[in-house]
Amino acid sequence: MCLKDDERIDQLYADDIKIIQSPSVFSFSLDAVLLANFPKIPKKGTIVDLCAGNGAVGLFVAKKTQGKIYQIELQEKLADMAQRSVRLNHLENQNEVLAMDVKDSLAKIPSDSCDLVLCNPPYFKNLPNNRKNPNPYYAIARHEVHTNLNEILFVSSKLLKMNGHFAMVHRPDRFLEIIDLMKKNRLAPKRVQFVYPKAGREANILLIEGIKDGKTDGFKVLPPMFTYDATGNYSLETSRLLYGK
Amino acid sequence: MCLKDDERIDQLYADDIKIIQSPSVFSFSLDAVLLANFPKIPKKGTIVDLCAGNGAVGLFVAKKTQGKIYQIELQEKLADMAQRSVRLNHLENQNEVLAMDVKDSLAKIPSDSCDLVLCNPPYFKNLPNNRKNPNPYYAIARHEVHTNLNEILFVSSKLLKMNGHFAMVHRPDRFLEIIDLMKKNRLAPKRVQFVYPKAGREANILLIEGIKDGKTDGFKVLPPMFTYDATGNYSLETSRLLYGK
Repeated sequence: MCLKDDERIDQLYADDIKIIQSPSVFSFSLDAVLLANFPKIPKKGTIVDLCAGNGAVGLFVAKKTQGKIYQIELQEKLADMAQRSVRLNHLENQNEVLAMDVKDSLAKIPSDSCDLVLCNPPYFKNLPNNRKNPNPYYAIARHEVHTNLNEILFVSSKLLKMNGHFAMVHRPDRFLEIIDLMKKNRLAPKRVQFVYPKAGREANILLIEGIKDGKTDGFKVLPPMFTYDATGNYSLETSRLLYGK
Repeated sequence: MCLKDDERIDQLYADDIKIIQSPSVFSFSLDAVLLANFPKIPKKGTIVDLCAGNGAVGLFVAKKTQGKIYQIELQEKLADMAQRSVRLNHLENQNEVLAMDVKDSLAKIPSDSCDLVLCNPPYFKNLPNNRKNPNPYYAIARHEVHTNLNEILFVSSKLLKMNGHFAMVHRPDRFLEIIDLMKKNRLAPKRVQFVYPKAGREANILLIEGIKDGKTDGFKVLPPMFTYDATGNYSLETSRLLYGK
């Protein structure tokens, strides 16, 4: 396995997955781990991870399913890292990395064919006066430079079977827009979980799941999660997701 | 002070307020206490409590403001209890109980005149197959028999000044509908707080605040609240709201 430049191999202990990271290009965050552990993962069928980055989410869910996993990533350099991580974990028969734009994924994956679409998208709008990371890899991963929420939800809805599930991690300050655009794209919001940095603080992460053409009643707000405990260490639930204990 | 039938006088220690209750007609719940403590209470101006019940919310906020407080309650018997509680607390100059339908409140209170509208509405839809409490007082207080969410939000929006605040307590399973109808009625959702019965459980109460003609960006999910602690006693924050310590 050939590492390039400043790449290193990190391990997600909870899922026994090795992943190629690079501080100058992309490293997965807790958000990817939260997303991979949020929805029920179908035992078989087709799973798509949009905005896959270095492939963390698609790698973390691989051991929970026999299904096919497509990992869609626009940035060639990140897709290449993801592809090498797939080989590093001997997942070539299950995971397929596609270096392409989200909106082109329908040319490769049939519409109405997927059981689950996952997405850890760019969180920030691409506004003219938004300060972006000078590193273009991070700017593209974090800001809606090449895609946006509506496009992601449109493509996700097209990819999913009726009653297929959509799961996303995002920021609470965009919650109203997320709800609105999910409904417009036939993805009925069903469950949300708010992640708070610690007790007494506002939520800074949300996890949301919707069902294509599902009913909009019975919305659930799942138990709160805390990233850190009162002493500033990872909470028990965060530790369990990261280290499996 | 004349008590009727099975009425008794309870005390909310935190706000040093006495309130006439009746187990056969209406008793305020924790939800009213949560609502009264959720929004910033304007120091002066006009505050309206819709679906006032026995007047708990309007009584609990009285000591936090010099403003005028209208308490609107459809059910004569409950409005009469609220009126007597106003006298019991010597608040006749500040609180005015109006025994009328929510939709008639605009005939008494000028539109575009209010600084804050509070509401602890009936939570359950009035569906033909919904089981209702055989006690008609409770059935009307809990089910949308005589009003509904859209009507409450329509009237609240009419009552409020531009940039006036709306605050409501409700159930998380109706969150999507609440967001949708608030926006349709020009009430931009700004802050939500989820109340969980205890750690590890889904939220069962939500508090939401909106601003008439406000911007819809900058939505905040406030720190989580827990009703009970791990031992099954009221949490510290619930105790503080109820007992002031």
